[in-house]
Amino acid sequence: MLFHVEMTVNLPPDMDAERAARLKADEKAMSQKLQREGVWRHLWRIAGRYANISVFDVESPAHLHDVLSQLPLFPYMAVEVRALCRHASSIRDDDR
Amino acid sequence: MLFHVEMTVNLPPDMDAERAARLKADEKAMSQKLQREGVWRHLWRIAGRYANISVFDVESPAHLHDVLSQLPLFPYMAVEVRALCRHASSIRDDDR
Amino acid sequence: MLFHVEMTVNLPPDMDAERAARLKADEKAMSQKLQREGVWRHLWRIAGRYANISVFDVESPAHLHDVLSQLPLFPYMAVEVRALCRHASSIRDDDR
Amino acid sequence: MLFHVEMTVNLPPDMDAERAARLKADEKAMSQKLQREGVWRHLWRIAGRYANISVFDVESPAHLHDVLSQLPLFPYMAVEVRALCRHASSIRDDDR
Amino acid sequence: MLFHVEMTVNLPPDMDAERAARLKADEKAMSQKLQREGVWRHLWRIAGRYANISVFDVESPAHLHDVLSQLPLFPYMAVEVRALCRHASSIRDDDR
Amino acid sequence: MLFHVEMTVNLPPDMDAERAARLKADEKAMSQKLQREGVWRHLWRIAGRYANISVFDVESPAHLHDVLSQLPLFPYMAVEVRALCRHASSIRDDDR
Amino acid sequence: MLFHVEMTVNLPPDMDAERAARLKADEKAMSQKLQREGVWRHLWRIAGRYANISVFDVESPAHLHDVLSQLPLFPYMAVEVRALCRHASSIRDDDR
Amino acid sequence: MLFHVEMTVNLPPDMDAERAARLKADEKAMSQKLQREGVWRHLWRIAGRYANISVFDVESPAHLHDVLSQLPLFPYMAVEVRALCRHASSIRDDDR
Amino acid sequence: MLFHVEMTVNLPPDMDAERAARLKADEKAMSQKLQREGVWRHLWRIAGRYANISVFDVESPAHLHDVLSQLPLFPYMAVEVRALCRHASSIRDDDR
Amino acid sequence: MLFHVEMTVNLPPDMDAERAARLKADEKAMSQKLQREGVWRHLWRIAGRYANISVFDVESPAHLHDVLSQLPLFPYMAVEVRALCRHASSIRDDDR
Repeated sequence: MLFHVEMTVNLPPDMDAERAARLKADEKAMSQKLQREGVWRHLWRIAGRYANISVFDVESPAHLHDVLSQLPLFPYMAVEVRALCRHASSIRDDDR
Repeated sequence: MLFHVEMTVNLPPDMDAERAARLKADEKAMSQKLQREGVWRHLWRIAGRYANISVFDVESPAHLHDVLSQLPLFPYMAVEVRALCRHASSIRDDDR
Repeated sequence: MLFHVEMTVNLPPDMDAERAARLKADEKAMSQKLQREGVWRHLWRIAGRYANISVFDVESPAHLHDVLSQLPLFPYMAVEVRALCRHASSIRDDDR
Repeated sequence: MLFHVEMTVNLPPDMDAERAARLKADEKAMSQKLQREGVWRHLWRIAGRYANISVFDVESPAHLHDVLSQLPLFPYMAVEVRALCRHASSIRDDDR
Repeated sequence: MLFHVEMTVNLPPDMDAERAARLKADEKAMSQKLQREGVWRHLWRIAGRYANISVFDVESPAHLHDVLSQLPLFPYMAVEVRALCRHASSIRDDDR
Repeated sequence: MLFHVEMTVNLPPDMDAERAARLKADEKAMSQKLQREGVWRHLWRIAGRYANISVFDVESPAHLHDVLSQLPLFPYMAVEVRALCRHASSIRDDDR
Repeated sequence: MLFHVEMTVNLPPDMDAERAARLKADEKAMSQKLQREGVWRHLWRIAGRYANISVFDVESPAHLHDVLSQLPLFPYMAVEVRALCRHASSIRDDDR
Repeated sequence: MLFHVEMTVNLPPDMDAERAARLKADEKAMSQKLQREGVWRHLWRIAGRYANISVFDVESPAHLHDVLSQLPLFPYMAVEVRALCRHASSIRDDDR
Repeated sequence: MLFHVEMTVNLPPDMDAERAARLKADEKAMSQKLQREGVWRHLWRIAGRYANISVFDVESPAHLHDVLSQLPLFPYMAVEVRALCRHASSIRDDDR
Repeated sequence: MLFHVEMTVNLPPDMDAERAARLKADEKAMSQKLQREGVWRHLWRIAGRYANISVFDVESPAHLHDVLSQLPLFPYMAVEVRALCRHASSIRDDDR
C-alpha cells in the first residue's frame, strides 16, 4: 500500500562537516537500497528546499514506521505522512 | 518538467445532483485524456478526503496553468503547486 | 490495520430539520453496522464539539476511503486521517 | 473518565546517547505500569513520527495532570489534551 | 471538575431579527439557570468580540457535552474546551 | 478591571536543577503574594501542560504589565492577554 | 486607558448597494462622533485592505466593548483587541 | 516607491456568467491602463491559482490604496501588501 | 508616510546580563532620538509582552528599512510592517 | 521560466562577526554574478525584515534548485518558491 511522505531536513548549520557528510552518505545508501527493493517507490526534490516528496509502497503502517524511523537523518526530519489509494479517475488498474 | 499538485475539491453539498454528476464526469474525461497524453503523470486519492495528489509533466509553468485552469472542477478547487526535480539520491537517471 | 480519524461535522444551521434528522439517523445506522463488523473499532465524542475521534480497522487505505466516503454525513465533514501502528511500549502483542 | 492525549517527543538529536536510552527505558517502564493499572488505556504510535496517540482513563483532570507531568519524557513533549465521552451512536453501553 | 470553555458566536448578520432575539433570550435564560445551579461557574465577555470565556463545574466530560450541546446558540458557536485543575501555587485548597 | 492571561512556561530541559527550583519557588512566592492581594484573582493549571490560565484584577493595562513582567519566570513564558468584562447574561452585578 | 484595535470588514459583495451605503454612512458618522469625543483616538486605513488600525482611549474594557459592539458594521467585522500602555522608552510622560 | 502585492480572487462559482465576464473585462482594462501608466509595474500569474503577484510603483501608501480599492474585482480579492526597497546587493542603481 | 510596525523582542534568557543591559540602553537612546526627530511617531508597549506597537513617519520604505535595521535589538526582533494611510472617516485632514 | 522566491535569512545573532561578514560578502558576490547573467532577474528587500523577494529566470526547476542550494546563506534561509507565468492581462508579450 502507498503512503505519501514529505520530509524536511533540518540539519544544524554548525554541525561538524565530516559528521554531516557521513550522515548524508548513509542516508543516500539506505535510500537507494530501499528504492531498489521497491519500498521507496518515488523520490523527488522540492525545488529550492532541503526537502523531498516521496511515495512508499509498504506492507502496513508499521512497516512504514520501521523504514522511516531507521533513516540516518530521521532525528533531524519533520515528517508528514498521508495514506494514498488508487483514484477512481486513474487510467491504470493499480495504484501506480 | 514536474510539478506536484494537491487538489482539494469543495463542491457545495447542496449542488444540483445532476449538475454535480456532469461536472465530475467531465473532470474524469479530461483527467484521463491528460493521463493518456502523459501530462498528468500520477494521480492518487488521499484516503478519507475529497482530494488528490498529482504529478504533472509539463513544458512550462504556463502549460501547467493552462491545464489546471481548464479542469471542469477548477472553480471549486483549492490548489497547491510545488516544483519538483530529480533527487540526488534517486537510483534513476531521469525524474521518474 | 489501524487509522485514527477525526471527523468534524459542519451541518448548515438552517438545514431543513427533517432532512437533518434523516441524515443523522442514516449516519447512526451505518456507523453501528460498521462497529458491529469490527471496522469502526472505536468511536468517541469530543466533549463540547460536534466532532468525534475514531479508530478504524481496515484492510487498506482504499478500504478506509470507501468506508468514509460512503458515510451519509461525509459531504459535511472535515476529516483528518493518520495511520497508527503498535507502539513499542505497548503491553499488548497486537494493536489494541 | 477518558482523555485523548497526543504526545510529540522532541529529544535534542545531540543528547548524550546513554542518557537518552535511560530516559526512554524509564518512560517505557512507567508507561507499561500505567497500562497494567488501566490508567493508560490505549497507546498507539503515529506512523512515521516520534509521537503517539493515547487514551487515558482517569478520575479527574488533576489525576491526568499528575500522570502526564511525571512521565520521564514530559519535559521534552508537546502535549495536546481533549476530553472524550461516549458517542450517542456507539454500540456499547460504556465509553470503550 | 472544571473545564475552561471559550465560545465564539457566529450568527449570520442577515438572520431574521425576531428569530435572533428569541435565540439570544433563550440562551440567556438557560445560561442564567446553569449559573444559579453552579454548573456555569464563571462567564465573562471578551472585550470587543461576540465571544465569552467561561468556566464550567461539571461531573464529567459527558455532563459538559450535554450542557454545551443543548445551548440554543450551540449550532452557531465555535467552542474550544480545555480541562483545568487546581494549580500547585494556588492559595486555595480547592479549585476556585 | 479584569484580564484573562494564559501563560505557557518553556524552561529549557537542561537548565541547572537548582536554578530551576529556585526560579519556581520565587515564582510561587510572588504568585501567592499577588493572590493574597487580590490582584491574581484566579489561577488554574491546564491539565497536561506546563501552562496556566489566570484572571488578573488590576487598575490598568500598565499595572498588568508591571505585574507580569516582574514574574521570575516571565523571560521563559509565552503570554497571551485578553481584556474581559461583565457578560450581559451574568447573574452577578459585578465582574466575578 | 488605551486599546489597539484592528478591524477587518467583510461585507458580502452582493449586499444591496443602498443598504451597504447606509451602513457605511452610519459607521462614518458614529466613528467621527467618537473621534471628536476623544474615545477613538487614532484611525488609520491599512493600505490595500478594507481594514483599519485604531487606538481607543476608554475608561475600561467594558467601555471598549460597548463602543465597538454598537458600531453599525460590527456584525460584519473581525476584531482583534490588544491592551496598550506607555512604553518605558517613550519620550512622553503620558501614553500618547 | 514599490509595493509587492499578492491578489487572490475568490469569485463565487455560481456568479452569473455574464456579470463575471464583464467584471473580468473591466478589471483587465483597468489593469492595462495602470500598466501603461507605469503604476502597475509587474503582473504575473501564480501557476495553478486564480491569483497574481504584482509590483506597484506609487507615490504613497494612499496612492496604492486608491488604486487597489478601485479595481473592479477588489471586493472579491484577498490582498496582501508588503513594502519593497532596493536591495543592497542589487546590481542596479534604482529599484528595478 | 506612515508605517505600522510591531516588534517582538526575543532576547535569549541566558544572555550575559551586562550585555543585555547595554543593548537595551542603546536601543532606548536610539529610540528616543528617533522620537525627538519625529520619525518614530508613536511607541506603545503591548501589555504583558516584550513587544511594542509603533508608528513610523518616514520618507520611503527604504528610509523605514534603514531605521529599523540599525536598531541595536534588530537582530533579536520579529518585525511586522504594514503601510498606513489616512482613513476616509478620519476627522483630521492629515494622517495623525 | 520564472519562479518567485522569498528568502528569509536567520543568521544566529551570536555568530562570529568575521564569519558572518564573509558569508554576506560571498552571498553578495554570487548574487551579483547571477544578476549579471540574467538568472536572478529581480531582487528587492522587504522593508523592515532580513528578507528579500526575488524573481529567477531559469531553465528548469532543477536549475533553480542548483542555484538556490549553492548560495552561501542557503543553510540559514527559509525559502518559499512559487512558479510564475505571463498573466493574461499583461500588456507585454513576454513574461517581464
